[in-house]
Amino acid sequence: MDIAERIKADPAHWRLANAIRALSMDAVQAANSGHPGMPMGMADVATVLFRNHLKFDASSPHWFDRDRFVLSAGHGSMLIYSLLYLTGYEQMTIEQIRNFRQWGSITAGHPEYGHAEGVETTTGPLGQGIATSVGMAIAEEALRAQFGKDLCDHRTWVIAGDGCLMEGISQEAIGLAGMQKLGRLIVLWDHNDITIDGRVSLSDRTDQLKRFEASGWRTLSCDGHDPADIDRALADAASGKDDRPVLVACKTIIGYGAPNKSDSAGVHGSPLGAEEIEAARKALGWTAPAFTIPEDILADWRAIGARGGAARDAWNARVDAAPNRDEFARRISGEVSEKLAPAIAALKEQALTAKPKVATRKASEMVLEVINPELPETLGGSADLTGSNNTRTKDLGIFSPEDRKGRYIHYGIREHGMAAAMNGIWLHGGFRPYGGTFMCFTDYARGAMRLSALMGLPVTYVMTHDSIGLGEDGPTHQPVEHLAICRATPNTLMLRPCDLIETAEAWEIALSSASTPTVMALSRQNLPLLRAEAGENLTAKGAYILRESGKKEPSVILMASGSEVEIAIAARDALEAQGVPTRVVSVPSMELFRDQPETYRKKVLPKGAVRIAIEAGVRQPWDWLLLGERGKAKKAGFIGMTGFGASAPAPTLYKEFGIAPEAVIDEALRLLG
Amino acid sequence: MDIAERIKADPAHWRLANAIRALSMDAVQAANSGHPGMPMGMADVATVLFRNHLKFDASSPHWFDRDRFVLSAGHGSMLIYSLLYLTGYEQMTIEQIRNFRQWGSITAGHPEYGHAEGVETTTGPLGQGIATSVGMAIAEEALRAQFGKDLCDHRTWVIAGDGCLMEGISQEAIGLAGMQKLGRLIVLWDHNDITIDGRVSLSDRTDQLKRFEASGWRTLSCDGHDPADIDRALADAASGKDDRPVLVACKTIIGYGAPNKSDSAGVHGSPLGAEEIEAARKALGWTAPAFTIPEDILADWRAIGARGGAARDAWNARVDAAPNRDEFARRISGEVSEKLAPAIAALKEQALTAKPKVATRKASEMVLEVINPELPETLGGSADLTGSNNTRTKDLGIFSPEDRKGRYIHYGIREHGMAAAMNGIWLHGGFRPYGGTFMCFTDYARGAMRLSALMGLPVTYVMTHDSIGLGEDGPTHQPVEHLAICRATPNTLMLRPCDLIETAEAWEIALSSASTPTVMALSRQNLPLLRAEAGENLTAKGAYILRESGKKEPSVILMASGSEVEIAIAARDALEAQGVPTRVVSVPSMELFRDQPETYRKKVLPKGAVRIAIEAGVRQPWDWLLLGERGKAKKAGFIGMTGFGASAPAPTLYKEFGIAPEAVIDEALRLLG
Repeated sequence: MDIAERIKADPAHWRLANAIRALSMDAVQAANSGHPGMPMGMADVATVLFRNHLKFDASSPHWFDRDRFVLSAGHGSMLIYSLLYLTGYEQMTIEQIRNFRQWGSITAGHPEYGHAEGVETTTGPLGQGIATSVGMAIAEEALRAQFGKDLCDHRTWVIAGDGCLMEGISQEAIGLAGMQKLGRLIVLWDHNDITIDGRVSLSDRTDQLKRFEASGWRTLSCDGHDPADIDRALADAASGKDDRPVLVACKTIIGYGAPNKSDSAGVHGSPLGAEEIEAARKALGWTAPAFTIPEDILADWRAIGARGGAARDAWNARVDAAPNRDEFARRISGEVSEKLAPAIAALKEQALTAKPKVATRKASEMVLEVINPELPETLGGSADLTGSNNTRTKDLGIFSPEDRKGRYIHYGIREHGMAAAMNGIWLHGGFRPYGGTFMCFTDYARGAMRLSALMGLPVTYVMTHDSIGLGEDGPTHQPVEHLAICRATPNTLMLRPCDLIETAEAWEIALSSASTPTVMALSRQNLPLLRAEAGENLTAKGAYILRESGKKEPSVILMASGSEVEIAIAARDALEAQGVPTRVVSVPSMELFRDQPETYRKKVLPKGAVRIAIEAGVRQPWDWLLLGERGKAKKAGFIGMTGFGASAPAPTLYKEFGIAPEAVIDEALRLLG
Repeated sequence: MDIAERIKADPAHWRLANAIRALSMDAVQAANSGHPGMPMGMADVATVLFRNHLKFDASSPHWFDRDRFVLSAGHGSMLIYSLLYLTGYEQMTIEQIRNFRQWGSITAGHPEYGHAEGVETTTGPLGQGIATSVGMAIAEEALRAQFGKDLCDHRTWVIAGDGCLMEGISQEAIGLAGMQKLGRLIVLWDHNDITIDGRVSLSDRTDQLKRFEASGWRTLSCDGHDPADIDRALADAASGKDDRPVLVACKTIIGYGAPNKSDSAGVHGSPLGAEEIEAARKALGWTAPAFTIPEDILADWRAIGARGGAARDAWNARVDAAPNRDEFARRISGEVSEKLAPAIAALKEQALTAKPKVATRKASEMVLEVINPELPETLGGSADLTGSNNTRTKDLGIFSPEDRKGRYIHYGIREHGMAAAMNGIWLHGGFRPYGGTFMCFTDYARGAMRLSALMGLPVTYVMTHDSIGLGEDGPTHQPVEHLAICRATPNTLMLRPCDLIETAEAWEIALSSASTPTVMALSRQNLPLLRAEAGENLTAKGAYILRESGKKEPSVILMASGSEVEIAIAARDALEAQGVPTRVVSVPSMELFRDQPETYRKKVLPKGAVRIAIEAGVRQPWDWLLLGERGKAKKAGFIGMTGFGASAPAPTLYKEFGIAPEAVIDEALRLLG
């Protein structure tokens, strides 16, 4: 059927869908950049989804029990902006559509979480949306198990393209979702057979249905330009026929409606041009001026936007009547539990007495043993390193198809998928996720960790084995540059505690965060308790005087983090014994120290002393602390790594790489002249 | 069949295989760390492979036409070390086995390329081996097409575990290999159903055979402890029956032979303990002392190691007789082409005359247009951003199952898979691979890029759209911390050229590199030609005086890289006009500048001047240049990014984020007081 026949067969659908096409063409053309092909190709599927299936209320974007809609193929952002405008999201005015991709608008080139209401997650880096949606679906299952179907009962819908499905992260997402039987997760695959370089067959010949089935998904197909066929497929997908997640292959034509450019890579990422837009308008029978939606069509779309009002009212009434409504409200608000601070304080006091010598990964477990029973919102996990990351505590239970109340997730060997799922869990609401792997494998999770930071999601990465202290596993498993990487990333809180008390404080900070992810770098090896008092959360200052010099004005200031603080203290004691006044500054977080008032920073790091930093990583992030931001520093030295690690027992490595008290003492004496 | 019956049925096999088991148990026990489960589980498969199928000659580890053997499940390193010792690789003495995981030994915890001969690639980070092997198989096909089967005719064998197959990168590898019909790639899946956290079903229920088939693989299965069945499967896999890559599911029991610990997660990553080793020896009928292989068994293994000698002699004879043997020798040596320097010099001269204003990504294409016809060893590609990365030049042809002489690879939307494949292409030999994506998506490729650096492979990453200059696509696509990330990574050369001449010089450096990967950061936006002379390769100095101050002693030194050098020059001209002597230092590479003699560095950055760095990224990597490594600097300022970017046209972003000549001038005047 050609497009004219299709329109004739179901005009009620096509006027709605073509409104998306028109807005998408116009906005991309006005911006002189953007991606018209995908919104035009998926306009029909999206129209049927919003018209007949998606549970939402445009007047209440934050209604908790709404279905989540994730545009994993984020370059097609005009699809979602069109839908938000058409269905009547208040923020999404026609002015915003006109200002697509312009400074200050909420209509960024790719959908950005926190810009426009209705955008559930930031997408654009391919595969992130589908992997994030797995977390949303996990959270929905878990919260439903805890609070019941009356309060939590919705689906997660995803639109994903070939790019999303080619990215490796998609396999991690598909495998996890299939294993977890996330039956309310529905992925609509924009099967248009085009990538930027040309036909998909240039780079892939995967039978996607077979691939999804292999990982336990149910698969359906439809003609993505036949509204009745789409409706049939979506209804089937949403039927809850069984507990498998569902892939719907929607056979589409990219840029559908653009008579000369559709079905080609050329329509993917460039404006159509005035001439082709004119031809498309003709083909679509669209006569309204640019950025103008005829009133009757807009009215129909607005009615779709209001469709969910009754369901929302009913949900509100059920929440009001629920006995546990206050706890539910607290949980979905994301606010910090009042039980956190006292639990941390008590643990710190105990630590001061017991003085345990434990690895900070073990210290982290000791904190979690105290926290998890008090905070039902924690949802832990590990990428198949549970025993090494010490992330699982007693009585958490295992989240699985058989036990949705379990609060520990075996993410499998899927660091990237885990990070994205954690983003989705927080975005959904109701939980504070944390998940572990080795610090070195932040490499595998970087794509999603950056989105945690960009979106401002307070998820916690429990990254253990944070240096050459990992020992025999060798350089592939030993982070060297990774502390620098996390510190270089905006809105990322890197915490590297030196003992149990700092670890407890680090967890207090992480679980109190509102809009910043935390990366906790934890040691494999045992570390002594170094703190002598447990009152104030000193870790929150980022850096503080842990050992004062014998004389009030130190000649030497030793700065260190994590497992190297112990070395700094040993060097300090030796220097003091030689009559060199030496201060030790513990630096669990550079970010938090940078945020302190200048008076405090000057007090901790006064002028005039030799400064030496000690950390089993590269020097790059230390320079500003060593040298002062404006170049006011005195002599400075660094004891750390300049290359990759090696395979040997940890004590040997510290000795061979010269990260030891003796090296610190030598450097201090050398710099003092 | 229990193990005793199996041994009885084929003692000739089992004494060979049990030698691997014994060495693996003993070495892990002596090191008191390591992974005995995998070598014990895969000993039978590996024995049959080395005994009957793998083309190799232990006396000549670098014989070019050998089959490549990749242990993707790198934690099972004792499997390969055992095999290398048993078959008689000279370096792999029993002392090395005894020193497993110790400082200075070649028997690192995970197999490290460049340590022990016979280790074809570094593995350990899961999934890297299988993805790297795809590159090896590509290189084999491509080199065979260029030089014929007489000179290049071998297979790539991979052992991969469940961990490898769960990692996302495996899907990128599988998809690429299936599409490319790499029929000489054979993956032996150690299907033991155990991960660190427990049964695979805790985190995955994927039907792997179906998954591989979906991407165009042929699949076979065998009983991984039945030598005859293994032999049948490997023979079938190697038969070249059709052109699909082959997965062989080898059903194994992890830790096979350890009567109490096999088939459990406990045997994966810990020594068995003296008692269990004793029990295993008994079960295996192994009576020799620890680290001792009975002479007759060792003799049989050594015969296996010598099995390929005749094939190697025949190959040598064919090479000697080949008319193109000199070019073949040059190609597989990896040495730098003599044609490179003149081609670059000519282009630089032309640039000086033509003064083109082009984006450095376009400049890169102009270089490649000159280089690719001269250097048949280049093998280009892009992760589906060909038109944006400007990586494809005329007449390269497309590498595909139909055209193995094509020198351009459509890697698909697979940044991680591309990076790993490039590692494999270099490791195989015969080619210098380069591949492109957006700079921001180094995030997706980090795992493999780190291995390029760790292994010392001179591959070239063509990373375009290297700042907010990318514009409207917004913060998900705008690198901010990525320059810092690459600079923090050891043995990684970050080159950010400012114009066509620097870009040509950058390519000269990259294509001359022997053991360091290059990350080239290239602009989306047009940049003027800034260099006034084209003689010496100044980029190779890392930083150099691009514009001298009017007076010989500058009051202000402006440092910048890439697209911000233009801004520095505009600011310098304005400052000079105001009577402020201002020098501009172009900094295409911090790594190369760090390697310069101190006298040169002091000449470029003398004491006493105010220093300002300008780069559309975070400040972290600039501090040492701003402040001096030992704290000798004067006042310093930075004009760059402190957070994520935004979606808007590039000129707007530069203005709004304050990266502009005016801001530089203000900062200079402020610092001068």
